[in-house]
Amino acid sequence: MNDFNFYSPTEFVFGKGRENDCGKYVKKYGGSKVLIHYGGQSAIKSGLLDRVRTSLEQSGIGYAELGGVKPNPHDTLVYKGIDLCRSENIDFILAVGGGSVIDSAKAIAIGVPYEGDFWDFYCTKRPEKALPVGTVLTIAAAGSEGSGDSVITKQDGMLKRATGSDVLRPKFSIMDPQLTQTLPAYQTACGATDIMAHVFERYFTNTTEVEITDRLCEAVLLTMLKETPRVIADPDNYEARANIMWAGTVAHTNIVGVGRQQDWNSHGIEHELSALYDCAHGAGLAVIMPAWMEFVYKHNVMRFCQMATRVFGCEMDFENPENTALAGIRAFRRFLHDIGMPINFDELGANQQDIPKLVEKFGLGDGRTGGFVALSSDDVAQIYQIAANAKL
Amino acid sequence: MNDFNFYSPTEFVFGKGRENDCGKYVKKYGGSKVLIHYGGQSAIKSGLLDRVRTSLEQSGIGYAELGGVKPNPHDTLVYKGIDLCRSENIDFILAVGGGSVIDSAKAIAIGVPYEGDFWDFYCTKRPEKALPVGTVLTIAAAGSEGSGDSVITKQDGMLKRATGSDVLRPKFSIMDPQLTQTLPAYQTACGATDIMAHVFERYFTNTTEVEITDRLCEAVLLTMLKETPRVIADPDNYEARANIMWAGTVAHTNIVGVGRQQDWNSHGIEHELSALYDCAHGAGLAVIMPAWMEFVYKHNVMRFCQMATRVFGCEMDFENPENTALAGIRAFRRFLHDIGMPINFDELGANQQDIPKLVEKFGLGDGRTGGFVALSSDDVAQIYQIAANAKL
Repeated sequence: MNDFNFYSPTEFVFGKGRENDCGKYVKKYGGSKVLIHYGGQSAIKSGLLDRVRTSLEQSGIGYAELGGVKPNPHDTLVYKGIDLCRSENIDFILAVGGGSVIDSAKAIAIGVPYEGDFWDFYCTKRPEKALPVGTVLTIAAAGSEGSGDSVITKQDGMLKRATGSDVLRPKFSIMDPQLTQTLPAYQTACGATDIMAHVFERYFTNTTEVEITDRLCEAVLLTMLKETPRVIADPDNYEARANIMWAGTVAHTNIVGVGRQQDWNSHGIEHELSALYDCAHGAGLAVIMPAWMEFVYKHNVMRFCQMATRVFGCEMDFENPENTALAGIRAFRRFLHDIGMPINFDELGANQQDIPKLVEKFGLGDGRTGGFVALSSDDVAQIYQIAANAKL
Repeated sequence: MNDFNFYSPTEFVFGKGRENDCGKYVKKYGGSKVLIHYGGQSAIKSGLLDRVRTSLEQSGIGYAELGGVKPNPHDTLVYKGIDLCRSENIDFILAVGGGSVIDSAKAIAIGVPYEGDFWDFYCTKRPEKALPVGTVLTIAAAGSEGSGDSVITKQDGMLKRATGSDVLRPKFSIMDPQLTQTLPAYQTACGATDIMAHVFERYFTNTTEVEITDRLCEAVLLTMLKETPRVIADPDNYEARANIMWAGTVAHTNIVGVGRQQDWNSHGIEHELSALYDCAHGAGLAVIMPAWMEFVYKHNVMRFCQMATRVFGCEMDFENPENTALAGIRAFRRFLHDIGMPINFDELGANQQDIPKLVEKFGLGDGRTGGFVALSSDDVAQIYQIAANAKL
């Protein structure tokens, strides 16, 4: 096990109707004037935004509002948010939405106290100061409600880049599983895929002897295997929604990933897909992640056998462990298909003629990535190729 | 799943030699003069206390010292610590030791800013204010390094009572698995038993549909089943020590226990044993917990089958599930025996003639406890009786 620091100071406020307490929690964490940051019409139509406003008013908290966050959130709205916060003397940002809204809120939060361009933090600079952020989560997926991470797309050139720092961890996150019940099945499945991908990116490691985090990873994955089909079949199933929502947070506070080298290449490879085609991040992951697994599994067949047997319940083939490893990957792809996810470029709406462009944007050049297997540009091209033609 | 709040703001600083940074972390969390609180000679002889002093001095932190914390820590030393903190203007308490030292430090921390008797908080009053506490952990067991709990024994009458509050969660906890390598096998096994008990007290619940926390509980238990025998056989095994140490924290921040009713009766029933005989808490749990399981399993046979199959790898007997439930409990007791734990009163050094006295001290009278199964005084007596005569 590697040395590590683990710090997850967010207060999670979980359960039915808890969004009606958001004013109380803004106050508890020192906010006096809030930017309510949100996405499209659904937060308005569902009455959620009204309930948030009422709760803030009851706690004597002032607010301004900025909606319009889109999936794969853009830098343009972030600049607008930073200006608004400065002109309105905002001291707390309340993200009402899913991962995109929260990521956009975090970008605004680091931009406000910074004199330069906030995009610096998505290139090389590390955030050290930010306005406090709270969230009212409406989609179980990104884990951004409990993480210090944020991903933003620069509209000029469609560059999708990430930043991370403990100063970006939300002060509180209100998680009412009921708010996710109106999500369409496709979006629900995209979220579930993202949650599982967050675990797999931590699971495949070259660090040995990390049984506790292996087992915790498997715990989240097993939960997702049970609960996701239940919620696809019955969108109103509160209990399944609740299990998935908490699993999504556990998957990404990093409690299941400490003490080990991680591999975020599937996320990176996917980001170029969602940046180019504006597809859902989870859908892109459903196409990329099993392809990545097929490309790298020979690097550590036994680790893939562990996944296959412990998570997907495959029988171990002791004479030919590769069979088990491949059976596990097949089971994962079958699961993704069964919950309605695309499994190849056609189903995603991507075009394999774009692969050279995707590889170029991935930006490795002659270098290599780190992780479980360090990839070259040619490796990345092969992974896109496997993904393009994948079958059940 | 029940509604819940989860808040675990402690910064965990994990790995080799991290205790040498304790001065830096005290400073980060606002301490300027520290009470170093510790147990017996081992912290002195090992040189740990010297390293802590040096680190504090290097960060310009002043300190006073109070050693002498015993297992099942007493109120008498807490009063001494409170007086010392007041006279020395201490603003931060650094616990260097295991759960007993940390629990004692937490008691001092709530006592200093309180005008009344700190014991009030171990009766009915809820702590709302405390000096900040940091820890340098030397035993993987109690989970006190990441919890808001504290257990103290009142010397007058040997009353062992607990308190809990988020204000008691440590600001930071330094966890160097190397510090646990000198622990005798018996104490290591006691710690492992305590960790597993913390999970079981959460696992047995009447709340349904809590797959995520069920799976997380099982993840910790499976880790303990693998790593504990390794460390008993080879005390210098750093990797096994590291897995157990992190498992111990995960077991008790409550991340594996949110959203569900819990049952802490085994802990309560054990507390009377360690209060009366001054035995190790983990050893008492090894005797009590399987006995409790045997007494209550019929309340929900399927939950015990889940434990038996998922954790202990028992085959499910579909014709007679009770067989599987009982096989799981037997496997647990056998495991405890194999790691060197006592499994009945004789082996613990307890006397079954004391059972009426133990039941009286447990203090139920004509009432009942809550939890998985609400127990009467007679039930508690029966559990002590099963524990007294237990065999493999």
